Amino acid sequence: MTYPFLKGHGTENDFVLLPDHDGSIHGDLSAERVRALCDRRAGIGADGVLRVVRSENPDPAVEWFMDYRNSDGSISEMCGNGVRAFARHLLDEGLVDTTAPIHVDTRAGVKVVTQTEDGLLTVDMGEPKVFGQSEISVGAETWTALHVDMGNPHAVLFVDDLADAGDLLTPPVHDERVYPHGVNVEFVVEKGKRHVGMRVHERGSGETRSCGTGACAVAITAMLADDAPRGTTYRVDLPGGRLDITWTADNHILMTGPAVVVAKGETDL
Amino acid sequence: MTYPFLKGHGTENDFVLLPDHDGSIHGDLSAERVRALCDRRAGIGADGVLRVVRSENPDPAVEWFMDYRNSDGSISEMCGNGVRAFARHLLDEGLVDTTAPIHVDTRAGVKVVTQTEDGLLTVDMGEPKVFGQSEISVGAETWTALHVDMGNPHAVLFVDDLADAGDLLTPPVHDERVYPHGVNVEFVVEKGKRHVGMRVHERGSGETRSCGTGACAVAITAMLADDAPRGTTYRVDLPGGRLDITWTADNHILMTGPAVVVAKGETDL
Repeated sequence: MTYPFLKGHGTENDFVLLPDHDGSIHGDLSAERVRALCDRRAGIGADGVLRVVRSENPDPAVEWFMDYRNSDGSISEMCGNGVRAFARHLLDEGLVDTTAPIHVDTRAGVKVVTQTEDGLLTVDMGEPKVFGQSEISVGAETWTALHVDMGNPHAVLFVDDLADAGDLLTPPVHDERVYPHGVNVEFVVEKGKRHVGMRVHERGSGETRSCGTGACAVAITAMLADDAPRGTTYRVDLPGGRLDITWTADNHILMTGPAVVVAKGETDL
Repeated sequence: MTYPFLKGHGTENDFVLLPDHDGSIHGDLSAERVRALCDRRAGIGADGVLRVVRSENPDPAVEWFMDYRNSDGSISEMCGNGVRAFARHLLDEGLVDTTAPIHVDTRAGVKVVTQTEDGLLTVDMGEPKVFGQSEISVGAETWTALHVDMGNPHAVLFVDDLADAGDLLTPPVHDERVYPHGVNVEFVVEKGKRHVGMRVHERGSGETRSCGTGACAVAITAMLADDAPRGTTYRVDLPGGRLDITWTADNHILMTGPAVVVAKGETDL
């Protein structure tokens, strides 16, 4: 079977997109096919697959459903970098009204994406939850980290230098009572006013070049440390690019960043 | 600029192919574009680029030139897994007579590729050179390795278990007097009669899932250890697949293995 695909990324978190508007191509996409597509040597290679299918949501504004799969074939609810890449594809192909906010249906609910004047995309990432502090260790070094939940758990800690985290080839050690299902750990440095840099160790993936929810958790932690007023925007530099995070007066986190589709074709994987 | 590409691999050594028959698309392909294409997150992702261009060789049997580039943008002479992927593309697209041997022009001369009955491709890798022994170390462990040259230098050593080589995150230590330009190191285990398994640390790349010249060097070393007659075929299992190596009576090394094109499309990278 030969079918269409696209490849794109948001801050170097990369995806294979599979247009399957009426579900007739892939139906229930198999985990095996997802793994084959995401295989970086034998396949096309990506962090995940975004199947593009029409939404069953009765709201006429909600036209498209993002069927997101991790590279191991498992189903995932949402991905902040993925939803921008998904929206970019819809815009590129004229599949949505380019003058209105884009409503993307996901397993974590409908996400609203808007275009900025400079060609970036803003995603409403919903409401964060901020919990207490616990300890994170790498080797002999231990830091105090803030527990922020963006639908997934984060431990955010400040370091003097991002190199202090070492090579991150093994997962940082966390408190199992605080994070029974593992945790994404963010190491942060201050880079200027409302401007931080970060590295992230994602549970199950190791160090990655970008983590959208991680950037949100980092900005929240930095805003709390600075006692910044709601509505302020913080710039977060990741290895794969830059994300701008705003914490709104109504307690939503807005994430703004780039997304691009770089290739389009057919595959029989 | 939007232009066509394909993605394929041979034993998981993967390539972006760029059809550019008359040279009008890419002309002198820039190192920057090669790096962008090979970037595994922001691009398509590959170990190298194979530009498909008509050969200037006056021999009418030599129709195509494989312009091979490493993922860092540098020019390379030849790649045994790459030339199979290149030949597979020529066959798939009907760009060569499918009933005759395929003559692929490369910077290391014309390579002859033939199809086997079971759909594999055999490449004549030319004449090997076998030199003496020297020591290779990983951590506290030291082995005696055979120096085999396949146009590039190899150090081949036998281990009891492929895990003995460790994680290979740092290059094995070699004798600079023997290998002044670095060396590819192969760790080999016997798996049965005329059958070995290997791991490889490629200079400049680290551990990889396949190295065609490395598999040739390994088979040669095993044949010499077994005092095998010329014309014998050895099976070499690599992390990315299987290659069969024959040392002919006229001192040529034939490498047989799979090659497949998995995707085809357009990009503007």
